[in-house]
Amino acid sequence: MNAFRCAGLTLGSLPPGPRAMITDVPGVRVGHYTLIEDVKGSAIRTGVTAIVPPGDPYAEPLAAGIFVLHGHGKATGLWQIQDLGELETPILLTNTLAVFSCAEALLTWTLKRHPQARSVNPVVLECNDGWLSTIEFRPLQEKHALLALDAASEEVAEGCVGAGTGMIAFGYKSGIGTASRIVDPYTVGALALPNMGRREDFVPPSPLALSPFGGEAGSEGMGGSLIVVLATDAPLLPAQLARLCRRGLLGAARTGAPADTGSGDFFLAFSTTLRLPRDAKSVAVEIIPDRSRLMGELYRAAAEATQEAIYSALLAATPLTGREGRSPPIFRPKNR
Amino acid sequence: MNAFRCAGLTLGSLPPGPRAMITDVPGVRVGHYTLIEDVKGSAIRTGVTAIVPPGDPYAEPLAAGIFVLHGHGKATGLWQIQDLGELETPILLTNTLAVFSCAEALLTWTLKRHPQARSVNPVVLECNDGWLSTIEFRPLQEKHALLALDAASEEVAEGCVGAGTGMIAFGYKSGIGTASRIVDPYTVGALALPNMGRREDFVPPSPLALSPFGGEAGSEGMGGSLIVVLATDAPLLPAQLARLCRRGLLGAARTGAPADTGSGDFFLAFSTTLRLPRDAKSVAVEIIPDRSRLMGELYRAAAEATQEAIYSALLAATPLTGREGRSPPIFRPKNR
Amino acid sequence: MNAFRCAGLTLGSLPPGPRAMITDVPGVRVGHYTLIEDVKGSAIRTGVTAIVPPGDPYAEPLAAGIFVLHGHGKATGLWQIQDLGELETPILLTNTLAVFSCAEALLTWTLKRHPQARSVNPVVLECNDGWLSTIEFRPLQEKHALLALDAASEEVAEGCVGAGTGMIAFGYKSGIGTASRIVDPYTVGALALPNMGRREDFVPPSPLALSPFGGEAGSEGMGGSLIVVLATDAPLLPAQLARLCRRGLLGAARTGAPADTGSGDFFLAFSTTLRLPRDAKSVAVEIIPDRSRLMGELYRAAAEATQEAIYSALLAATPLTGREGRSPPIFRPKNR
Amino acid sequence: MNAFRCAGLTLGSLPPGPRAMITDVPGVRVGHYTLIEDVKGSAIRTGVTAIVPPGDPYAEPLAAGIFVLHGHGKATGLWQIQDLGELETPILLTNTLAVFSCAEALLTWTLKRHPQARSVNPVVLECNDGWLSTIEFRPLQEKHALLALDAASEEVAEGCVGAGTGMIAFGYKSGIGTASRIVDPYTVGALALPNMGRREDFVPPSPLALSPFGGEAGSEGMGGSLIVVLATDAPLLPAQLARLCRRGLLGAARTGAPADTGSGDFFLAFSTTLRLPRDAKSVAVEIIPDRSRLMGELYRAAAEATQEAIYSALLAATPLTGREGRSPPIFRPKNR
Repeated sequence: MNAFRCAGLTLGSLPPGPRAMITDVPGVRVGHYTLIEDVKGSAIRTGVTAIVPPGDPYAEPLAAGIFVLHGHGKATGLWQIQDLGELETPILLTNTLAVFSCAEALLTWTLKRHPQARSVNPVVLECNDGWLSTIEFRPLQEKHALLALDAASEEVAEGCVGAGTGMIAFGYKSGIGTASRIVDPYTVGALALPNMGRREDFVPPSPLALSPFGGEAGSEGMGGSLIVVLATDAPLLPAQLARLCRRGLLGAARTGAPADTGSGDFFLAFSTTLRLPRDAKSVAVEIIPDRSRLMGELYRAAAEATQEAIYSALLAATPLTGREGRSPPIFRPKNR
Repeated sequence: MNAFRCAGLTLGSLPPGPRAMITDVPGVRVGHYTLIEDVKGSAIRTGVTAIVPPGDPYAEPLAAGIFVLHGHGKATGLWQIQDLGELETPILLTNTLAVFSCAEALLTWTLKRHPQARSVNPVVLECNDGWLSTIEFRPLQEKHALLALDAASEEVAEGCVGAGTGMIAFGYKSGIGTASRIVDPYTVGALALPNMGRREDFVPPSPLALSPFGGEAGSEGMGGSLIVVLATDAPLLPAQLARLCRRGLLGAARTGAPADTGSGDFFLAFSTTLRLPRDAKSVAVEIIPDRSRLMGELYRAAAEATQEAIYSALLAATPLTGREGRSPPIFRPKNR
Repeated sequence: MNAFRCAGLTLGSLPPGPRAMITDVPGVRVGHYTLIEDVKGSAIRTGVTAIVPPGDPYAEPLAAGIFVLHGHGKATGLWQIQDLGELETPILLTNTLAVFSCAEALLTWTLKRHPQARSVNPVVLECNDGWLSTIEFRPLQEKHALLALDAASEEVAEGCVGAGTGMIAFGYKSGIGTASRIVDPYTVGALALPNMGRREDFVPPSPLALSPFGGEAGSEGMGGSLIVVLATDAPLLPAQLARLCRRGLLGAARTGAPADTGSGDFFLAFSTTLRLPRDAKSVAVEIIPDRSRLMGELYRAAAEATQEAIYSALLAATPLTGREGRSPPIFRPKNR
Repeated sequence: MNAFRCAGLTLGSLPPGPRAMITDVPGVRVGHYTLIEDVKGSAIRTGVTAIVPPGDPYAEPLAAGIFVLHGHGKATGLWQIQDLGELETPILLTNTLAVFSCAEALLTWTLKRHPQARSVNPVVLECNDGWLSTIEFRPLQEKHALLALDAASEEVAEGCVGAGTGMIAFGYKSGIGTASRIVDPYTVGALALPNMGRREDFVPPSPLALSPFGGEAGSEGMGGSLIVVLATDAPLLPAQLARLCRRGLLGAARTGAPADTGSGDFFLAFSTTLRLPRDAKSVAVEIIPDRSRLMGELYRAAAEATQEAIYSALLAATPLTGREGRSPPIFRPKNR
């Protein structure tokens, strides 16, 4: 269960899956590599998170779509998703200056499995952890990303792990969060990397609305960013997945995410079941029409799962002292 | 003052302008024409709302931008804004099947002032009031839209007037709502036409969160739409105005707007001061860079003003009985 | 046969259909209403062209996509195609100031067939014929558009008919042109309304490359616009149809289309076989993957058919004297 | 002078700059690193090309815009340009699997000059040279890209150098090509990396149209890609630069570029004079309105320069034998 559900909280009208995690979508796995070390005066507080889809994404690319709320980000691989709607590698999340080491890892990972490949489109998304971590040392290497890929499993560690290690959101320590929703017979899962917002932007989960906040405000005035990855086993077309992303945005907005001027707010969604085998001449698909009520429920699921995943990232976060002795407060309402 | 402020409510961190209305942006005026009549078995509950920018929009087009969350809408004139960033007519809001009568009115209005014009790009946005009004009678005519344009003034009537006449949102009677924010020395104003959402989607203004709702649920299961028009006297470029629209979206999401499958959620923003005279060879502009703190505050203003304008539309709405005797409940928390 | 083929010309590597017209796509029909009259000192030289897809577009919307090269245009109905990928009415082409009369006609046409409809998304595209026609008189009425719809048939008149009546391109009299290509077992058809370009922009069909031009240059310096509608019976998804539009753009560029500052260059493509019935819960589709060779051939077909349709519009045009006695030259190379 | 002008050819209506190269735009420099070696059974035929804008791009980002015709590409850094319109590093061109080594080089290059930087958006574009080069060995390293940056000068080597080393286009050996146009008082420059098209797609420069082709057809059926970078000293806004890119597309289409299913056709344009200093609170700009004739001429310049740059890449190419002994023919018409 995710930290949100473990705290006894609920949100929205749709039920979560059994784990309340993105891995409730069959076959989806998540792995982390966390890098915490202090060398040569640095405070490295960073990592990589891998989201691994089921099957062979290169041989059978997955339908995928994106939405970018504010484009101040360094993500790789997005145009091929934007234009062609295909995801052909796992997805890595990391810090802003480690994007390209991680992309190299996805090349290596894919070429190992497909030695004949001449073109690979690695997808890496990022948030900036430079407030807590000596990001400019660029300590993360390809090997770390490969370890995150190897570590992928169905149980998702939340909080200050992997790419979540150095995150802060709404002035609190943040990290990795995840959630899921069931829209029978389908599941929609979300994994969030929230790194945005000032204290006064925060809209806490509703039964906690009137609780006094603990701790002191974190990094004032940082714009920050937000990454959300949505997975579903509904056979959605790329354009529908892009629309699913926009509902993730609605969920993020309900937590108070401000999309400030420096933010890179990227949403990516993929379907594990609508796949486009590389050499297929035709692919039989059962489209869910956009007007259908089911589609509306899937939209609702994306919004709820995203909102919950962001809250779960905050609730799972644990104390961490980083660069220049900074130690952002933990979000724990007093009545718990 | 808008209905939200008149109810003693506040929201967000930025102060409203003196009227708490879109007309706090100097020179912006709003007019309505309301059409309520019962003829030949019909129940006409509809209207037109005109937002008139200062100056001569055809001779000196205004910088403008849009964002469309879900494109199930029949708006006219948007590509020229999307691609070229120019608004050259007033903006009309009306019902889904009256869009083109209103567009004709804008042609007439412009050709009267500029007889030499050979090309005019009328901007009309719409929501569907067919649950309360016999929309398929298509009763609104060009003359009604011209009357709305003529009626434009700085005092904005809210609630069940103009295009707001037949609106419902979150199961309650809705209408026209407006709000504003000051980001010294600039003003950001919003006018909303909310026609979306189910009762369970609603996130009430926060001090009212625990109040019991009055009345019965309105039209279950209707997707509905949302139109938001933002105005500012900050000299924003078209791309910046498009980004302002996306922050309007954040404010809408905080009220619970679901962007359901049938929704047409259109956001349009214009600047009254960044103007591109039709025959100018060059135009001197003071750009506010995207990274600046001021830009972040303008984004915040757009989110807050949009959220408040939607609430104000609900709080200003008054009882109305329409088609098939339908009479949606009014949102009034019991403790007020 | 279209005028291009009647002139003994060929172009590209793919074969045309039996008519070399958009109506080679089974079930597609085209109708015109031409309005030529001189009243009260005016010279009316305008019209409406209707492209009617097979079946009932409202009950069973067609997959559709668009591409806009330069957005200086007043088209209606495009956001619903852009975002949701659905075409639910016939397509009308007309002059810039008659767009909304034509849109009303599509409302009437649809409500007559579906009295219960409460929302209709009429698609109308336009070019400006104000150089030859007294466009500001706004003579075209809804009834004229309904007559164009009624006149739809499989044999397409080209040249100075319907919306083509007042067109000029590359300084020559232009009009309606059409063409098609076979990509076994599918057909791609194009209908073009070229109204753009200066004489020096023109790239004539290649065997005519060195022929001296007849006549005098037409309206110098007018930016002009270009509308291209593509139809296919290949079951393409909306995103694929949008990409098909971009290949239409390639074909247009090969004729020298400049996309000048005042141009509204709109491309719209629809599939007659990938249909999304309004109340369907799921739709079985055989997707043609984007990487397939067949998709590449369909792209090639769109480029070739568009290029040929533009040439055919010029070759089919006949002398016409309009506003202020203007009479643009006819494109006929001397060696023919 | 570029290879096209050296061959005595001309194209279009606008005059070239003194070098007929992108470096006619004051301050723009271009450098190459070419990697040709045969080790361990490989045939490495690849390289990096650097386009270095004047001034300090990180301290004073340049206005920039993009257009993607077909998104099958692995470019980095584009969302920040797409959304925010800013270029903050030099631009590197390389092969598909070397994108991320090059991106690392841009991080190193920037952090060396701005040690306090915590976020850098490196822009790297690519074509696939895997038909001539053992691309999957991934031989290009960060150091090679840094050497290309160091080598930047005002004289641009064309043909089989840098990223052009392993290119083929229209079945011929291709490479780097460049061209420029003067629109007084401004210059528009283009640099092209054409790697697309089949022999039958090719539209040769017009006086050469009827000449028989020399040599044998190269790699049949490869989709290929096209990269075009446009530079100008006109103070264009990001949205205008994006539109400039679309005119580059028109020029590319006139050479026969097909945008086949596997293509990544990316166009990027930047202004050397509209700069947005990182900490500026406001920036005074003289906007050139979109409707102005000057803007139309700048569009024309972009189309002509792109078309010429592609031809120049073919005319500058020299024989090269690569992987599996492949040696694509050289485009040289017999009459020269």
